Amino acid sequence: MRSEEFRAHGYEVIDWIANYMRDVETLPVAPRVKPGDIRRALPAAAPEEPETIAACLEDLSRSIVPGLMHWQSPNFFGYFPANSDPAAMLGDFLSSGLGVQGMLWSTSPACTELETHMLDWLAQLLDLPVTFRSPDGGGSRGGGVIQDTASSATLCAAISARERARGVAAGAQGDPLGRLVAYSSTQAHSSIEKALRIIGIPSDRLRTIEVDDQWAMRPSALRGAIEADRARGLIPCFCVAAVGTTSTLAVDPVESIGQICNEHGVWLHVDAAMAGIAAICPEFREMHRGLERADSYCVNPHKWLGAGFDCDAFYVANRAALVGALSILPEYLRNAATESGAVIDYRDWQVPLGRRFRALKLWLLFRANGARALREMVRTHVGFARSLADRMRTDPRFEVIEPQTLGLVCFRLRGGDAATESLLTAINESGRAFMTHTRLSSRYIARVSIGQRTTTAAHVDALWSLLSARA
Amino acid sequence: MRSEEFRAHGYEVIDWIANYMRDVETLPVAPRVKPGDIRRALPAAAPEEPETIAACLEDLSRSIVPGLMHWQSPNFFGYFPANSDPAAMLGDFLSSGLGVQGMLWSTSPACTELETHMLDWLAQLLDLPVTFRSPDGGGSRGGGVIQDTASSATLCAAISARERARGVAAGAQGDPLGRLVAYSSTQAHSSIEKALRIIGIPSDRLRTIEVDDQWAMRPSALRGAIEADRARGLIPCFCVAAVGTTSTLAVDPVESIGQICNEHGVWLHVDAAMAGIAAICPEFREMHRGLERADSYCVNPHKWLGAGFDCDAFYVANRAALVGALSILPEYLRNAATESGAVIDYRDWQVPLGRRFRALKLWLLFRANGARALREMVRTHVGFARSLADRMRTDPRFEVIEPQTLGLVCFRLRGGDAATESLLTAINESGRAFMTHTRLSSRYIARVSIGQRTTTAAHVDALWSLLSARA
Repeated sequence: MRSEEFRAHGYEVIDWIANYMRDVETLPVAPRVKPGDIRRALPAAAPEEPETIAACLEDLSRSIVPGLMHWQSPNFFGYFPANSDPAAMLGDFLSSGLGVQGMLWSTSPACTELETHMLDWLAQLLDLPVTFRSPDGGGSRGGGVIQDTASSATLCAAISARERARGVAAGAQGDPLGRLVAYSSTQAHSSIEKALRIIGIPSDRLRTIEVDDQWAMRPSALRGAIEADRARGLIPCFCVAAVGTTSTLAVDPVESIGQICNEHGVWLHVDAAMAGIAAICPEFREMHRGLERADSYCVNPHKWLGAGFDCDAFYVANRAALVGALSILPEYLRNAATESGAVIDYRDWQVPLGRRFRALKLWLLFRANGARALREMVRTHVGFARSLADRMRTDPRFEVIEPQTLGLVCFRLRGGDAATESLLTAINESGRAFMTHTRLSSRYIARVSIGQRTTTAAHVDALWSLLSARA
Repeated sequence: MRSEEFRAHGYEVIDWIANYMRDVETLPVAPRVKPGDIRRALPAAAPEEPETIAACLEDLSRSIVPGLMHWQSPNFFGYFPANSDPAAMLGDFLSSGLGVQGMLWSTSPACTELETHMLDWLAQLLDLPVTFRSPDGGGSRGGGVIQDTASSATLCAAISARERARGVAAGAQGDPLGRLVAYSSTQAHSSIEKALRIIGIPSDRLRTIEVDDQWAMRPSALRGAIEADRARGLIPCFCVAAVGTTSTLAVDPVESIGQICNEHGVWLHVDAAMAGIAAICPEFREMHRGLERADSYCVNPHKWLGAGFDCDAFYVANRAALVGALSILPEYLRNAATESGAVIDYRDWQVPLGRRFRALKLWLLFRANGARALREMVRTHVGFARSLADRMRTDPRFEVIEPQTLGLVCFRLRGGDAATESLLTAINESGRAFMTHTRLSSRYIARVSIGQRTTTAAHVDALWSLLSARA
């Protein structure tokens, strides 16, 4: 496909997406397909001869779209949002067009420098501690990098923590790997267990610390666990605090946890994948109190902010710890710029070698929206969630799980687990909205996550009518 | 940005990319910027108020493009290609528009099923052993998944190998992690050492096996190393064979290596990231002989084939080994479809939890080009490389490093290392072409990698004129 054909087909694709954006709210949010339905509609082999883009778009509408969950629907209230802001989409499309590889500074300097710059912009918008800024952006030893997901950020943090602990324990009694211990709350994300398993710390050396009545980690319990492990000759090395857990957006007390971790030389990683974005508004920054005590931090612009998957912003306070853990330099990647130390080679800040120019989508997202509109979006969603929770609190059939936090409303029916599950199933099968569930102290809890970019008061009202009618 | 504004801005972006595609060959391939140049041209903070897409595009042209390496230029002969086929670009853009999350089958069934289907299409096109096909695609226990890069594929293979070895050794003498050993050739990619370091196998337990005069692993040396390790009470668990090394595209003998690995219960991963795509042409399939002995395999459609970064196709012969190593199932990800076992949840086939709908770009790539045109592209590039190597062989100043393989020509000047390095620097600084280097037996070697989608005979002729004039 040459430039002029691309132009014509590009317009067709723009039109298709524009129409999808316009119509998505009329589609059933969750698909109604059975395993294998989609595959059965597809040819068994790739075609020998070219087909038109128009034919592909027709098949997309007919065979693929009915098999999708519509995460971009304003009626999507499941999991957490995964917003595709139109400006970010265009930014990512430009990145496809440029098709550069950002593995080294030298393989496209602007790709690396725009990324460092955008991560500094984001750090300012969130008012993160200056320790996480790059040297050219007001910091000294730290900086940010785009990872695909918070899982990968946790993995990189865990590797750094493991290597730091090994360095400290070097020469003591052989490789300390078998004595390293990690900590998170009972409410923490599965990615922590996964990352630790990958790096060689099995589940029985991840201590899941009890939570208080707000579902947040109890610092005293953390301290007790760390001290008990040390007394047994084990090496506490890594702790993940959640600023917004997956189930309820519970906020672990970073300040107290940070004091304990600093005292014991434990690497503190703060995972604020969903909730952290709220810190673009000053009134929601309390959850980050004590963050200057953390060794690393991550937040996902691909969730609430709309950067489009994938885009996790991962920050470290000491880049040398991360790079030291991940750097390997073969001849075919050597070059003068790298060896001078004057530049960042982001391949040493992540697991993969290659990297896409993801900073472009952040750049367009920030510029085409402006910071003010992004703050407004967050405030609007939080307002919707508060008002929905209030309606539930005044209805004797509903029980809101407290504290209700940011855009998430967790609730159950006083009728019990089965009634709550039936309600959730009924809503999802209606196609008019989509929600997911969790369990807290073994009770079945429904979650309404309000944060889809195009959700308005009318969509939340419609959801409440539906919930109220079917409860 | 609403649907109608998106349509208008989308057209602007399409035009920008179409113009870039048209003009890229006139730009200096490598940028002429110094560290920090790009950042200094950018505002220190994100704007409060929205700016237009037109302003962003203007800044892109003025401030960013001069700081890029033009990987999509037909004069790009560095590293390996990272082709952005226009149809794949449009496919990926559609994926941004749909904005679905494919972490579980249930979170968008079509996202999972199209991916499995596309990986089966690709397996057919490459004529991979049936062991790598999915159950619905003619296989039984295996299947494919899209990873970001070959580095991540190697990591997933290594974790699976480690867990299999642990399972076999269970109960013997505590955790065998400290006794696991891995193997690759001296020419193997840095991602192997990195993956092993991540999972807890240090560099001193990666045996780098010597190569023959074709730069390919010597099976007898591999056998010797494995037997020596077993004799010392160590546990050989993982071997990576390269089908196309990074330096010279050397092809390790998979058949013999596979026999040895099978005999000793060593997980064999075959990394064919660049070269594997050539197997879409029957005449290049010899390099895959013996592949049915491998436990896993990967090839990168984002390189030669044009899928656009990122898109690595990773196949396993026994999916249970991979899923068993990576699966963790918390309540908030439970659902009926998963628990029935009737579907694939790709989150268990990779490190991250979330995933983008990357199968769409493969679908459009295959359909809009057709298999025949993709084969022709590969054959054309291989023909260009052979003819360039022939020209060098008849010029007494040049020495071709043999065997010349597929689209890669490695050479040096008979004048020696310094002369070769000066030539490469002169070419790159001219802006008219871009090449990279490697070292073989400590000698400096220049590499001409021919595989950029739009490179024609005229571009290769121009490169030869340049080389010949400056040698």
